[in-house]
Amino acid sequence: MKLIVLRNNLKSGLSAVERAVTENSALPILKNVLIKTFNNRIKLVGTNLELGISCLVSGKIIEEGEVNVPFGVLYGIINNIDSEKVSLESEKNNLHIKTDNYNAVIQGVSSEEFPIIPKIENTEYNLELNGEVLKNSLLKVSSSVQISEIRPEISGVLFDFQITILKIAATDSFRLSEVTLINNQYTTNLRKGFKVIIPLKTIQELIRIIPDDKQVTIQIDPNQILFKNEDVEIISRLIDGNYPDYEQIIPKEFGLEVQINKGHALNAIKLVSNFSGKGNDILLKIADGKKAVEIYSSNQYLGENKYLIPAKIKGDNNGIVVFNWRYLLDGLKIMDSEEIIFGMNGESKPATIKPANNQSYFYILMPIKNS
Amino acid sequence: MKLIVLRNNLKSGLSAVERAVTENSALPILKNVLIKTFNNRIKLVGTNLELGISCLVSGKIIEEGEVNVPFGVLYGIINNIDSEKVSLESEKNNLHIKTDNYNAVIQGVSSEEFPIIPKIENTEYNLELNGEVLKNSLLKVSSSVQISEIRPEISGVLFDFQITILKIAATDSFRLSEVTLINNQYTTNLRKGFKVIIPLKTIQELIRIIPDDKQVTIQIDPNQILFKNEDVEIISRLIDGNYPDYEQIIPKEFGLEVQINKGHALNAIKLVSNFSGKGNDILLKIADGKKAVEIYSSNQYLGENKYLIPAKIKGDNNGIVVFNWRYLLDGLKIMDSEEIIFGMNGESKPATIKPANNQSYFYILMPIKNS
Repeated sequence: MKLIVLRNNLKSGLSAVERAVTENSALPILKNVLIKTFNNRIKLVGTNLELGISCLVSGKIIEEGEVNVPFGVLYGIINNIDSEKVSLESEKNNLHIKTDNYNAVIQGVSSEEFPIIPKIENTEYNLELNGEVLKNSLLKVSSSVQISEIRPEISGVLFDFQITILKIAATDSFRLSEVTLINNQYTTNLRKGFKVIIPLKTIQELIRIIPDDKQVTIQIDPNQILFKNEDVEIISRLIDGNYPDYEQIIPKEFGLEVQINKGHALNAIKLVSNFSGKGNDILLKIADGKKAVEIYSSNQYLGENKYLIPAKIKGDNNGIVVFNWRYLLDGLKIMDSEEIIFGMNGESKPATIKPANNQSYFYILMPIKNS
Repeated sequence: MKLIVLRNNLKSGLSAVERAVTENSALPILKNVLIKTFNNRIKLVGTNLELGISCLVSGKIIEEGEVNVPFGVLYGIINNIDSEKVSLESEKNNLHIKTDNYNAVIQGVSSEEFPIIPKIENTEYNLELNGEVLKNSLLKVSSSVQISEIRPEISGVLFDFQITILKIAATDSFRLSEVTLINNQYTTNLRKGFKVIIPLKTIQELIRIIPDDKQVTIQIDPNQILFKNEDVEIISRLIDGNYPDYEQIIPKEFGLEVQINKGHALNAIKLVSNFSGKGNDILLKIADGKKAVEIYSSNQYLGENKYLIPAKIKGDNNGIVVFNWRYLLDGLKIMDSEEIIFGMNGESKPATIKPANNQSYFYILMPIKNS
């Protein structure tokens, strides 16, 4: 293998595959990145066996071939190199890197030892959508995924392919986010409904890597899912298990609907949370003759504070509801709208945050029970 | 106490005293900040008994008085408040904070419990200099201070007041930095030489707080040093002990002098260090017919690399010298000059980094002995 590549192209390619490379694995080969010529471009591949990322970058191919070397040292070099162009050349298993005044040899291992990146067996199931639409949808649900793996089936994001819509959802059992895409937002040859659960790490990589301005193709087989465009392929295992039937907890109507300004509410919650204790509890109640929401928190050692947010209120004043303020913030942050609607049904029933002018997504959170 | 203050003024005042407040102390009062009216301004005070910082901010004083409350919660509130003005009012030991739609009460403790900030007993010893000159001098030496307190006498910065010059120096026994200020850079009434050692934490706070555009007055007594201007006072204990007599190790002449571009050298060292091992060793030698310096590092598992930096070289090629690359970077970073001179005397004698066009400061580092 012999090639010349722009340092910035190589750097962004390596950055794309970075998180699929595993520094602390029992299998040392997983620390390596595979570099190979492919269709007159340069393919970079990293895998941790659960997630594989490959990225194509352009360059001048002088001689075809492949080599695999430790990712960390190569990335360190490419990040620090001050030359616009870099020459890469393999010699047996080693990689030579050259610029005008710099020379490096990185020791690699035989290409045969590099793990095979799995392929989708059944390419029948295809779905294509805009990168930005996919990314925005994933951003709206990713904060609700259960971080730990106590219940593996909710440690990922649900893709619920229905006949005419695609629902994307996540929950950690304290809150739930759901986005609905309708079939004019994607093209597909799917003819029957089915569900898959995609690991959080894969979702985070998609958010990081998928470019906004390109179409993304999704292919699925029973064990794996592939997201690809002409430059990047991300293949991931799926999580085994049945996603909980969350539809039943989605409130259909609300005893109380509060419309507030998102930015105002974000500031107020951050401010008032300064007195909140380890349980992150913060109290909401209707105040000021139904013209405002009062947010309150107190702490026996520190003191107490409250904030009045002007609001449009519909329905009955149904007392004080206690929330985890971090969950409130997470819900507000994913709203695209200036004005949001906060629907509640009393102190023990799930509440909903949604944009004032859009029905395509929402965030549900459970109140903290008053003790 | 009752006053109205601009949120931004209060925020920067609290930020100045922040590091003198101690969150994890056996004495809970040290978590508190003292707020008092003083000469028609607002004085904020924090102390950890070794370092005291007080800061004056302007505001509208309606009623004089003082109060002390936990710093953390007050700072959290002032950081998040979205109102331009804030009203502060004491009621017994508590502090009430109000804006248009926000109300807080922070529980404080009796002002008598707040520690007394020590004063300089003897205000005879005075020295005044420009804030920027002081800050730049401290920035040049602070990276050489010994971080641990194994040898307390070098865990701070030496201020060596001589009759016509002030030397500021630091060392961790592997490297040494020294800055010399001459007596047209300051005014003083000092009539005899003496030395004090100032703790690193105090130095870091001075660098953070001292404004560039104001004169700073220094007052010293046998146990303490005070740095002040009209807005801020920083009083610190001094470190007991005799600073090592480092003058003897300063090389007077060099067998080899290499002039290189600072930015070029910084890049080259970062790049080549990718192959350096845990000892951070990197090799320097004269190359390319005395027209360049070669920087080299290798690692038995990863490979090797080298970089040629164009250089002007005076003196004899005296073999390969091994340095800790992190210490080389620290030395280069504090140079203000584009061109720097690297003076060496072989593989086991201290080397010097200094700017090409300025004799007022230098950085000395010991080579790593070849094993």
